[in-house]
Amino acid sequence: MKELHIGIIGFGTVGAGVVETIQKNAQLISQRVGFTPVITRIADLDITTDRGVKVPDGVLTTNAMDVIEDPNIQVVVELVGGTTIAKTFILKALQHKKSVVTANKALLATYGQELFAAAQENGVDIWFEASVGGGIPCLKALREGLAANHVQEILGILNGTCNYILTRMEQEGADFNAVLKAAQEAGYAEANPALDVDGFDTAHKTAILASLAYGHWFNAKQVDTQGISSVTQQDIQYASELGYRIKLLAIIKEVNGHIQLGVHPALVPAASLLGNVSGVFNAVWIRGDIVGNTMYYGRGAGRQATASAVVADLIDLGLNISNNCLRRLPAFTPYDGYEHVMESSEVIARYYVRLQVMDKPGVLAKVSGILAKYDISIASVTQKENSSSSSVAMVILTHKAQDAALKSALAEIAVLDECSETPVVFRIEDLA
Amino acid sequence: MKELHIGIIGFGTVGAGVVETIQKNAQLISQRVGFTPVITRIADLDITTDRGVKVPDGVLTTNAMDVIEDPNIQVVVELVGGTTIAKTFILKALQHKKSVVTANKALLATYGQELFAAAQENGVDIWFEASVGGGIPCLKALREGLAANHVQEILGILNGTCNYILTRMEQEGADFNAVLKAAQEAGYAEANPALDVDGFDTAHKTAILASLAYGHWFNAKQVDTQGISSVTQQDIQYASELGYRIKLLAIIKEVNGHIQLGVHPALVPAASLLGNVSGVFNAVWIRGDIVGNTMYYGRGAGRQATASAVVADLIDLGLNISNNCLRRLPAFTPYDGYEHVMESSEVIARYYVRLQVMDKPGVLAKVSGILAKYDISIASVTQKENSSSSSVAMVILTHKAQDAALKSALAEIAVLDECSETPVVFRIEDLA
Repeated sequence: MKELHIGIIGFGTVGAGVVETIQKNAQLISQRVGFTPVITRIADLDITTDRGVKVPDGVLTTNAMDVIEDPNIQVVVELVGGTTIAKTFILKALQHKKSVVTANKALLATYGQELFAAAQENGVDIWFEASVGGGIPCLKALREGLAANHVQEILGILNGTCNYILTRMEQEGADFNAVLKAAQEAGYAEANPALDVDGFDTAHKTAILASLAYGHWFNAKQVDTQGISSVTQQDIQYASELGYRIKLLAIIKEVNGHIQLGVHPALVPAASLLGNVSGVFNAVWIRGDIVGNTMYYGRGAGRQATASAVVADLIDLGLNISNNCLRRLPAFTPYDGYEHVMESSEVIARYYVRLQVMDKPGVLAKVSGILAKYDISIASVTQKENSSSSSVAMVILTHKAQDAALKSALAEIAVLDECSETPVVFRIEDLA
Repeated sequence: MKELHIGIIGFGTVGAGVVETIQKNAQLISQRVGFTPVITRIADLDITTDRGVKVPDGVLTTNAMDVIEDPNIQVVVELVGGTTIAKTFILKALQHKKSVVTANKALLATYGQELFAAAQENGVDIWFEASVGGGIPCLKALREGLAANHVQEILGILNGTCNYILTRMEQEGADFNAVLKAAQEAGYAEANPALDVDGFDTAHKTAILASLAYGHWFNAKQVDTQGISSVTQQDIQYASELGYRIKLLAIIKEVNGHIQLGVHPALVPAASLLGNVSGVFNAVWIRGDIVGNTMYYGRGAGRQATASAVVADLIDLGLNISNNCLRRLPAFTPYDGYEHVMESSEVIARYYVRLQVMDKPGVLAKVSGILAKYDISIASVTQKENSSSSSVAMVILTHKAQDAALKSALAEIAVLDECSETPVVFRIEDLA
């Protein structure tokens, strides 16, 4: 039986998961694809901590170059993370004609083009299924399964921490800060949660999905990014009364050749599939011009789910190596036509608006008058009773409106004497 | 630019969809993969009917051999359907060293092994993504995306007609026969609906999914198959009151190396993702030992969705051809260990049981006594009031029970004087 010799750089949670997966299922994999995956070397600065998996003597090393320069190793898995030393390791591995598997979304979203150019130059592959949607084979679905389609829209729940927080807020009626604290204590959120809750992790994944869909490598900085810390318990309840749930969505749309790239808290129908993606789970909703609506669901993070995607990439590369067809389908192939990213002001969408206003006659007339002036049509308006305060919440769902017009209208509304707080605005995505 | 020369046999709805898809997106596809798909010849007995797509002069022929023997054609798409002449065409195409794409689940479920052997012998590929789940790239997900996993369970909503009927029964409170008639008039069900509503189409797809998951080519006859005609409006309402929806499920499970293969109406939680798959849509729920639960959703049939999957297969084969790596990943690779299919009596599952019983004291004691005798534990029991009749419905949800024991218990219950109708039994799948 042929063997595929694998080197791993970074022996943390996911690295241990990859080793465990291969130890458990190597025989099954070899029956399916005709070669046995073998972990030949593993590099990490710390090679003494017990990761819960046993590796043979001589496999561990503290020197990443022992992996990169080993002539037996055919594929290098980068699991160091970050955008500095990880990039160096990948470039060196590619220069040594090793194909690479990585789960590093931040690195790809920032330096993707440079890495792909290096892979092309050296005639090897770089594969990254685990970088978006964890164990869900969503990049394979997008790039191969839907290859006949022009992609019209992608909506994704791509950050398990945010979805866990929003789900608990909904189920327990608790506030954002209380749930975040509990999530941190339970290990579901980082001590510094900004990367997750401010939407940056989702923005990295948004950039990768959009790049694969449209043949232009977008940078995460081009993604209009909004986090979930502005979502209150009030908003979740009002959304629920109107038949919606609030999710942090990656939003990618093509409109007349222009690409919309956003990360926003958004109301999705409570009865929709995306609305029913709960807890740490992820889902990617893709609409193609031929296939229509499709969705892909699973665990978006964690030792095992991430390992499942990394090993799937290893198998894919192993098939290329054993069939002598590296670069059969390059990880990314650029083409023209979709490089223009819309300004956020150009976006046309439906919106949820919550205003805090004085409970007195004429307020609704003023607010609706300003919205009408900016050509914003109201789909529904609800004014909430509140006996304990002189101000009440007014919840407005708009029909499709231009973002710039809504911003102008809300700027006028915000300075009304009757308006006591900055208006809260979220997107509505009806999955139509 | 390189070209991929394609021949199509069968110019019906799907054939026209494939032509339309390639006409629309050939340029995009060539930008993505480096070759342009070209429809070189199309064979059909009827070449005069307008299919809504234009093809150049000389492409159409009434003779399938014109396609199969054309030396320029690299891939043949079989869209004739059925298990007789379609098989002949595929075998001849393979003998002419053409790779083949087919959507023919009945043929694959019946003669898969013979077709795969012929493909292997001739060094070409046979690909069939459209045969299960229509436009959903679920076979690719199972075979490639989850290749690192041992599959523990697959649950599928795989027949759009059945799901459309069950959804309308639920939403409109109408009976099976009324909805079936309306579905037939609207073109969502065949004049002879047996293949769909009796579960045979789902059984074909179940056999294909299980074969790919477990390395043994199962025959559709090995699938314990039950249709939806026994599902009444009553059952749908009772299920709903208990928090469930009734779906026709493909059920595939591995238990101690033995494979459970079934098609059954089953109660799934109304709040679950599978429970929210409505209308003609399909979904495949796959649990792997590494990745955990995943799900794949989309249109399971229709001209465009099926074409999306067929053209994805053509692109996959085109990549193999242009990279000189045919049989890089054979369509099916057999291995040992999972060939034993469980007898239905061996199955252990949760069950929904509806009895029609006399409304008098002691009935529940008798029924529960018989269930206890067979070691069947009751999770919940509800007796329905009914003022218009002396018999009432008793709805029992069991804990996990052996199918054989339940059958024995129900045989005893059925002959009780107090029991007025044959008991109705459906599976419960909690997606745990």
